[in-house]
Amino acid sequence: MSDRIANSHLRSLVMSAEEAAEHINDGDTIGMSGFTGAAYPKALPTAIAEKAKAFHGRGDDFKVNVLTGASTAPDADGVMAEADAINFRMPYQSDPVMRKKINAAEMKYQDVHLSHSGLQVEQGFFGNIDVAIVEVARITEEGHLIPSSGVGNNIEYLEEADKIILEVNSWQSLDLEGMADIYRVPRLPNRTPIPINNVGDRIGTPYIQIDTDKVVAIVETDAPDRNSPFKEPDEVSKQIAGNFLEFLEAEVAAGRLTYDRFIMQSGVGNVPNAVMAGLLDSKFEKITAYTEVVQDGMLDLIDAGKMTVASATSFALSPEYADKMNREAKKYREHLVLRPLQISNSPEVIRRMGLIASNGMIEADIYGNINSTQVGGSRIMNGIGGSGDFTRNAFASTFISPSVAKDGAISAIVPFASHIDHTEHDAMVIITEYGYADLRGLAPRDRVAKMISVAHPDYRPLLEEYYERALKNPHQQTPHDLRTAFDFHINLAERGSMNSFES
Amino acid sequence: MSDRIANSHLRSLVMSAEEAAEHINDGDTIGMSGFTGAAYPKALPTAIAEKAKAFHGRGDDFKVNVLTGASTAPDADGVMAEADAINFRMPYQSDPVMRKKINAAEMKYQDVHLSHSGLQVEQGFFGNIDVAIVEVARITEEGHLIPSSGVGNNIEYLEEADKIILEVNSWQSLDLEGMADIYRVPRLPNRTPIPINNVGDRIGTPYIQIDTDKVVAIVETDAPDRNSPFKEPDEVSKQIAGNFLEFLEAEVAAGRLTYDRFIMQSGVGNVPNAVMAGLLDSKFEKITAYTEVVQDGMLDLIDAGKMTVASATSFALSPEYADKMNREAKKYREHLVLRPLQISNSPEVIRRMGLIASNGMIEADIYGNINSTQVGGSRIMNGIGGSGDFTRNAFASTFISPSVAKDGAISAIVPFASHIDHTEHDAMVIITEYGYADLRGLAPRDRVAKMISVAHPDYRPLLEEYYERALKNPHQQTPHDLRTAFDFHINLAERGSMNSFES
Repeated sequence: MSDRIANSHLRSLVMSAEEAAEHINDGDTIGMSGFTGAAYPKALPTAIAEKAKAFHGRGDDFKVNVLTGASTAPDADGVMAEADAINFRMPYQSDPVMRKKINAAEMKYQDVHLSHSGLQVEQGFFGNIDVAIVEVARITEEGHLIPSSGVGNNIEYLEEADKIILEVNSWQSLDLEGMADIYRVPRLPNRTPIPINNVGDRIGTPYIQIDTDKVVAIVETDAPDRNSPFKEPDEVSKQIAGNFLEFLEAEVAAGRLTYDRFIMQSGVGNVPNAVMAGLLDSKFEKITAYTEVVQDGMLDLIDAGKMTVASATSFALSPEYADKMNREAKKYREHLVLRPLQISNSPEVIRRMGLIASNGMIEADIYGNINSTQVGGSRIMNGIGGSGDFTRNAFASTFISPSVAKDGAISAIVPFASHIDHTEHDAMVIITEYGYADLRGLAPRDRVAKMISVAHPDYRPLLEEYYERALKNPHQQTPHDLRTAFDFHINLAERGSMNSFES
Repeated sequence: MSDRIANSHLRSLVMSAEEAAEHINDGDTIGMSGFTGAAYPKALPTAIAEKAKAFHGRGDDFKVNVLTGASTAPDADGVMAEADAINFRMPYQSDPVMRKKINAAEMKYQDVHLSHSGLQVEQGFFGNIDVAIVEVARITEEGHLIPSSGVGNNIEYLEEADKIILEVNSWQSLDLEGMADIYRVPRLPNRTPIPINNVGDRIGTPYIQIDTDKVVAIVETDAPDRNSPFKEPDEVSKQIAGNFLEFLEAEVAAGRLTYDRFIMQSGVGNVPNAVMAGLLDSKFEKITAYTEVVQDGMLDLIDAGKMTVASATSFALSPEYADKMNREAKKYREHLVLRPLQISNSPEVIRRMGLIASNGMIEADIYGNINSTQVGGSRIMNGIGGSGDFTRNAFASTFISPSVAKDGAISAIVPFASHIDHTEHDAMVIITEYGYADLRGLAPRDRVAKMISVAHPDYRPLLEEYYERALKNPHQQTPHDLRTAFDFHINLAERGSMNSFES
């Protein structure tokens, strides 16, 4: 038995995942750790899926509601979705099997702003939390939990749940201890200011305190986080990254930013990694990040002495960088703070920091409304995640995307966004490989030419034609032609490309 | 000369509005006081409008950009818009003449979240601020400004402007002194927590300190604020108010609220006044408000001993209640705090308070996306105001509206909102005279029946037909039929009613 369980009472509760899954009942609502493929439970989800399959095989009902921090992995969301073990899921997800089930109306999904998710759990919007299933790196003698590679909503789930199941994962480095900064935002009506004034401020403890009497099972695991392999940035990603850096330079020129005061927030993916690679060779120094997840590029910036500290709630590393983290956590914990989601994504702290947000998107319309979540208005991809938390409170908010997808069949700039996650009041700067459209301080009509300038050249004439039709509307604040507003999307659905117009 | 100007240097700068307007040049950007018809300058706008007309009469250009706190009045926004004196306006407006000019593309309007407006001014998104024109109740011997009936973005405009013109309005009660609580949120990068833990906490000074060397003119006025007459709530408003109170009672029953802990935020209008009338006879006690504007109903609640304190940035009173305020400001200032807009609408403080937000809307769609600003997707009404600041950070966010407008020609519930100001991630409870749709914790498809249940019965079959078509979409997170998503709006534009379908 692992020496990672120093509390003797809790050590007596070690059992197999299958035995632990006996504590999960049909209809339960489970609060689960896990955020962008890190720190999710590695054993219980499969055990729950197997239990569901056994029940279903006998003709019995077995479905649970699963609330997490964000996305997990094929061996968590994936296996449970595959087994039709989930009725309702909240908040962010990105598993292909789960996505398919949601879009087929075979399970329910509520897409909640991440900063709201834990708060809404404690406010009871999702009913009673029956069980918390949380991965940890270690349990102390006092029964305190040392978080593994992420924190997410773990505090809320551990507090609210009737029963607790812990997974102690020996794959996670013991040197992660000290990276987490656990601060409980007081519950309403006793909330007080969150005393963070600088990105790296530590205000809490390195452990989560729980009611150990609620623990019903402990499972030992040694499986790695889902860490997606790193892809070398392609040419388009590099061009987008170049335009983002050009925008930063323009902010410096405008006196709004200095080379030693760039606080970044960054979504996950190819383009953000290209941006971070670009920052390595830039004039920016003492970069910090107040963001959701630690990515490869941030470790590179730390190694190069360009980044001093990053605050996040979790990791999203490639396997190579995850290994590096496990070897060198002692070094990195001097530069990384893992916070609860209510703090990593806190509107209060984000606005105080004055950061520059950068998030991906599916499409933007000609006035700057952003669709982050649903292709064609109906088909969920992943979810809004924390993009709304950061966009609404950043010093400047950018959205980045290649101008086209699917070999040009899909334009990222459209007449009317088919689902709106960030409104024309929120988005400030839209960046593609063709440049950046700075919408700040502009009335809607003045944004259109800028938006069309960052569209793919193949789509610019179509967007201009739409705008000409829209200008015939007698009302001109955000002129639209509602009869043809969704033609791009209808073309895509019916003829396979946004620019295949009915002849 | 008024004894309201105690500083001798500033007293020497008293002149007529026409003389003061000589300091305003074509192309200037003006930061102006004024918030929902209170505390706007009473003399300069007309003088600027006259100057513009004289220039235009000679064939010369004369237009200015006008940034305010929120809406002003016919003798401010109205006269300037009528004279085509405005090029660009930010943020909220509600003047009928100005609205017409904006929708006719004769002036530009950017609709900015109020909590962002002052911040974006200091970040330079609107360029240089040439002149601040601010109404005050009094100027102290030290040259400090005692705010009149509102604060808005005055601090930011006074700080940023090259020149300052003050209007000293003797209509405003001197007993307002002490009601304002002026706290300057530190500028980036030195922001710190806003130390408000309770609605009534005072953290600043009763005056605004300025650089008196920037003052170029002082104009004396004695005109009243624009105060809209109070209308007795109609039957529908009373029903909506009843449903709102029923929602509050349900929150108490669910253990999320107690009768002595209701913190309200409320938009302005007939329905909110009906809600406040309903609260007079309710079980709720020690009510507080963390909101934008003080309304008649709040004074009634204070008089009845039901409300202890309201925090706002300005007044929106009927003439009768404005008179009462002027007579009894000494009493009311014990119960009212007027704050800068960056604080009254601060996401940080709003989330800390745990308030219940209630805002009007133009329309909501079947998944809970909210259009607050634009009829038919293109025609601006007033603007988003602070509704986004409160909705995104409230404990619970409600939107209220009669189910139909224009004798039934317009439904407040539609298949797809023609402009989206609050997304399906944000809105929680939609209230009409037919009940309340509680969308919290629900996946989108589970919201539809609830939304249709609060639609007008005449529109329910049409909404159900739409949803049946939408369910044929192969993708089912928020199923839509994009070919017919805007039929309600197209009908209204082309045939005068949302339910006049093409035969």
